[in-house]
Amino acid sequence: MKLSRIAEPLGLVHQGGDPEIFGVAPVEEAGAGDLTFVTDRKFLARGMTAAAMVISPALAAGLEEAHPRLLSEAPALDVAEAAKLLGYRELTMSGVHPSAVIDDTAELGEGVAVGARAFIGPRVQIGAGSVIHPGVVIHEGTRIGARCVIQSNSVIGSDGFGLDVKGGRVRKIPHFGVVRIEDDVEIGACVTVDRARFGETVIGAGSRIDNLVQIAHNVRVGRGVVIVAQVGIAGSCRIEDGVVLAGQVGLVPHVTVGKGARVGASTGVAGDVPPGAVWSGWWGQEHRRSMTELVALRKLPEFMKMVKDMFKKQGWE
Amino acid sequence: MKLSRIAEPLGLVHQGGDPEIFGVAPVEEAGAGDLTFVTDRKFLARGMTAAAMVISPALAAGLEEAHPRLLSEAPALDVAEAAKLLGYRELTMSGVHPSAVIDDTAELGEGVAVGARAFIGPRVQIGAGSVIHPGVVIHEGTRIGARCVIQSNSVIGSDGFGLDVKGGRVRKIPHFGVVRIEDDVEIGACVTVDRARFGETVIGAGSRIDNLVQIAHNVRVGRGVVIVAQVGIAGSCRIEDGVVLAGQVGLVPHVTVGKGARVGASTGVAGDVPPGAVWSGWWGQEHRRSMTELVALRKLPEFMKMVKDMFKKQGWE
Amino acid sequence: MKLSRIAEPLGLVHQGGDPEIFGVAPVEEAGAGDLTFVTDRKFLARGMTAAAMVISPALAAGLEEAHPRLLSEAPALDVAEAAKLLGYRELTMSGVHPSAVIDDTAELGEGVAVGARAFIGPRVQIGAGSVIHPGVVIHEGTRIGARCVIQSNSVIGSDGFGLDVKGGRVRKIPHFGVVRIEDDVEIGACVTVDRARFGETVIGAGSRIDNLVQIAHNVRVGRGVVIVAQVGIAGSCRIEDGVVLAGQVGLVPHVTVGKGARVGASTGVAGDVPPGAVWSGWWGQEHRRSMTELVALRKLPEFMKMVKDMFKKQGWE
Repeated sequence: MKLSRIAEPLGLVHQGGDPEIFGVAPVEEAGAGDLTFVTDRKFLARGMTAAAMVISPALAAGLEEAHPRLLSEAPALDVAEAAKLLGYRELTMSGVHPSAVIDDTAELGEGVAVGARAFIGPRVQIGAGSVIHPGVVIHEGTRIGARCVIQSNSVIGSDGFGLDVKGGRVRKIPHFGVVRIEDDVEIGACVTVDRARFGETVIGAGSRIDNLVQIAHNVRVGRGVVIVAQVGIAGSCRIEDGVVLAGQVGLVPHVTVGKGARVGASTGVAGDVPPGAVWSGWWGQEHRRSMTELVALRKLPEFMKMVKDMFKKQGWE
Repeated sequence: MKLSRIAEPLGLVHQGGDPEIFGVAPVEEAGAGDLTFVTDRKFLARGMTAAAMVISPALAAGLEEAHPRLLSEAPALDVAEAAKLLGYRELTMSGVHPSAVIDDTAELGEGVAVGARAFIGPRVQIGAGSVIHPGVVIHEGTRIGARCVIQSNSVIGSDGFGLDVKGGRVRKIPHFGVVRIEDDVEIGACVTVDRARFGETVIGAGSRIDNLVQIAHNVRVGRGVVIVAQVGIAGSCRIEDGVVLAGQVGLVPHVTVGKGARVGASTGVAGDVPPGAVWSGWWGQEHRRSMTELVALRKLPEFMKMVKDMFKKQGWE
Repeated sequence: MKLSRIAEPLGLVHQGGDPEIFGVAPVEEAGAGDLTFVTDRKFLARGMTAAAMVISPALAAGLEEAHPRLLSEAPALDVAEAAKLLGYRELTMSGVHPSAVIDDTAELGEGVAVGARAFIGPRVQIGAGSVIHPGVVIHEGTRIGARCVIQSNSVIGSDGFGLDVKGGRVRKIPHFGVVRIEDDVEIGACVTVDRARFGETVIGAGSRIDNLVQIAHNVRVGRGVVIVAQVGIAGSCRIEDGVVLAGQVGLVPHVTVGKGARVGASTGVAGDVPPGAVWSGWWGQEHRRSMTELVALRKLPEFMKMVKDMFKKQGWE
C-alpha cells in the first residue's frame, strides 16, 4: 500500500516520497518496505533506514525534506491505525468459551467475551462488551462495568489481608465487601484485586493497570489512573484521578495520592502525596529534592575526605 | 438491630445512646444508620457521623459521653462479629467443584473444598477443612495441613530455581523435595511456593501470606509469621516464629530473620536479622539507625553548602 | 548404597570411609545416613555430621582426611546426580492432559507435555520436548522452541501496556506483535511476558526466568540470561547474552544491559548498564561505587556532628 493511501484515511500530512509500504516495525528493527514511528530524537537516524516514518511535526522539522513521512501528534497511536489498514490484527476474543465456569447467578451484558477456563462466581455482574481472558478468577459479588478488559490469570475479589490481636491470639479480620470496577478499565495479567472489609474496593473509569499489580482491600483508584507493572497498593489507599504510579511503586496503608500526581519507578510511598506532585526516592518525597539529595550522596565520599584533609591540614585532629 | 442487641452477644460494654443499626461501613464512608470502627485518633471526628462506633477504651476516653459506642480491645475483629449478627457473609466455599482436576493418588481430608479449575497433583495430601480456591495448582507430593486457605491462582510446589556451572556450561539444579504447609496457614492469590532441592520448603502453623509473594526452595517459614504482598524470599532462608515482613521486602539467599523481628516495607535484607529487631532501609539495618541516616541525608545538600561556604570564608580553597 | 558405588558412575574422586548412603539432605538438615553437599566454608562443621559430603577440592583441602567425601567442581549438580542413583525423582510431566484447551490451529512438536487446564491459543507453535505446566495461558501467535519449560499459571503473549494522548484523551496503544521463545528456555510460575507492539518480544536460547517476573512488550532477552524472581523489565529493553538480573530488579523502558553484566538484588536500572559491569543501588550504578557511598552514608550522622562540633569549637557559628 502506497504511503499516500495510508495518510488519507488517517488524516495525516504526508511529506517526502510515496514508497510502497509492506509492513510496520519498531524503529530498532525497521528496514526497507517498513513504516516505523519515532518519538525520541535519538532514534531519528535509525528511523531514516525505514521506508517511511510517522513522526511529530516538531521532530520532523529537524530532518531533510526528502525522507517520506507522515506528521502526527500521536505517532504511536497513528502507526497502529496504519497497521490496521495493512491488515494487522490485535489480540481479540469473542464469545464464551465452553470451558469457562460461570455461576448461574452471574449476569453478563451483551457481547461479553469469556476465555477458556475463566471462573465467574456467584452474583458477579459484567457490563456489555467486556473481555475476560483465559484463567481469570472473578469472585462472588464483583461488579465490572462496560468495555473492560481483564487479562489472563488475574484474580478479582480475593479475600483481603488483615490481622488483629484479640485475647492474646492473632486473628484474621474478615472481609464482607466486594470489588467494583467501573467502565473502560483495563487490567493486566496476574493482577490481584482484593475485596473490601465493608463496602467496596473501587477501580475508577478508564483506569489502566499493568501486570502483576497488587491492589488491597478498600483501595479506591480514581478515574484515568495509570498503574504500571508490579506496583503494590496497601489497604485503604486513595489514588485520585489521573495519577500515574510507575513500575514497582509501593504504598503503605491509608495513603492518599492526590489528583494528577506522578510517582516514579520503585518509589516507596510512606505518606500522602500532594495533588500534581512528582514523587520519587526509596522513602518517597518531591522528585527534584530526591535528585538533589542523590547528587549530594554521589559526592559524599570525596566530600568527607576533603573535609577531613582540611581539618588535618589545620592540625585539628 | 438495636446497638444494645449487638453489644450483648459480643460481650462488649455499650455506652451512649441505643440507635438502630442497619449496616456496617468503613469510617471513611459510614453514614446515618451505620456502625463503624475507629482505631486511629485522626478518624475520630469522621466516626462521629456514623450511628455508632466500635472503639478502644483508650480512644473513647477522649470523647463526649453522648455518642453511641461499643468498647473493644480489638475493634476491627469485633465490628466483624457485629456484621455477622447483621447478616453479612464472608467469601466462603464448600465442596469440590466438578471442574477441579484431582489426581487419583491425592488424599483430601474431611470437608476440604476445592474450587473451579483447581489442580491437585499426585500424592498431594490436604488436611480436613482446608479451602483451595479456583485456579490453584498444587504440585506432586505437597502436604497441606488442616484448616488452611489457599487463594485463587496460587502455585504450590513449583520447581525451584537454581543454576550451577559444570564443564563450562550453566545447568539447572534439579529439585527433588516437596512443600509442606502446616495447619491454619492462609496463602493469598498468585503466590508461588517452590519445592525444596531435598527435603521440604515449609510454611509453619498459623502463618499468613498475602498476594503475589515468592517463597523459594528450602525456605523455612516459622509459626505465626506474617508476610505482606509482593515479598520475595530467596532460597534456604529461615523466617523464625512471629516475624512480620512488610510489603515488597526482598531477602537474599541463606538469610535468617530472627524470632519476632519486624522488617519494614521495601527493605532489602542482605544479612541475618537479629531476633526482635525492627529493620528497614534499601540495604536493611536497624530501623532507628536507618531513620537517623535518612534524616542526615535529607540535610546533606545544605550541610555541604554550609561547610563549603565556611571554608571559603576562611580563605581555604 | 555404598558411597563408593555413587562415586564411580559420577566419575568423582572418593576420599575417606565408605559409608552406606540412605538419602540426600541439605546441609542444615543432614544426619546419619545422609549424603549432603557443601559450597560455603561456614557450613563445613555442620556437614561433618552427615554420613558424607560432596565438596570442592578447595574446601576439602582444609578438612581432616578421615571424613567420607566426593570431590566435585559442581557439588550442587553432582549431589543431584547421586540423588537420581538413589531413586529420587524430579517434578516431571508427560502427555497432554484431557482438561487442557488447545486451539485447532496450534502446532505441538513431538513429546510436548501440556498440563491440566493449560490454554494454548490459535497459531501457537511449541517445539519438541517442551513442557507446559498446569494453568499456563499461551496466547495467539506465540512461538516456543524445543525443550522449554513453562511453569504453572504463567501467561505468555498477554497484551502489552502502553498509553498515548490523542485529541486530549489517553488511549491504549494497540499491540500487533507476538512472543518468541527460543530453545531450552525455562520460565517460572506466575510469570507474564507481553506481546510486542510490532515484531516480537524475544527470550533467547537457554535463558532461565524465575517466578513472578514481568517482561514487557518488545523486550529482547539474549541467550543464557538469568532473571531471578519478581524482576520487572519495562518495554523495549535489551538484555544481552549472559546477563544476570537478581531478585526484584526493575528496569525503566528502552534500557540496554550489556553482555555479561550482573545487576544486584532490588537495583533500579534507570540507564544503560555497560557490558560486564556489576551494578547495584536504589538508583543503580557501578556496585563498588554504590558500596562506597553506602559506607559514607552509614557514617554521615556522626560526621555531621563532628564537623559542627569542630566549627563550634572555633567559634564559627
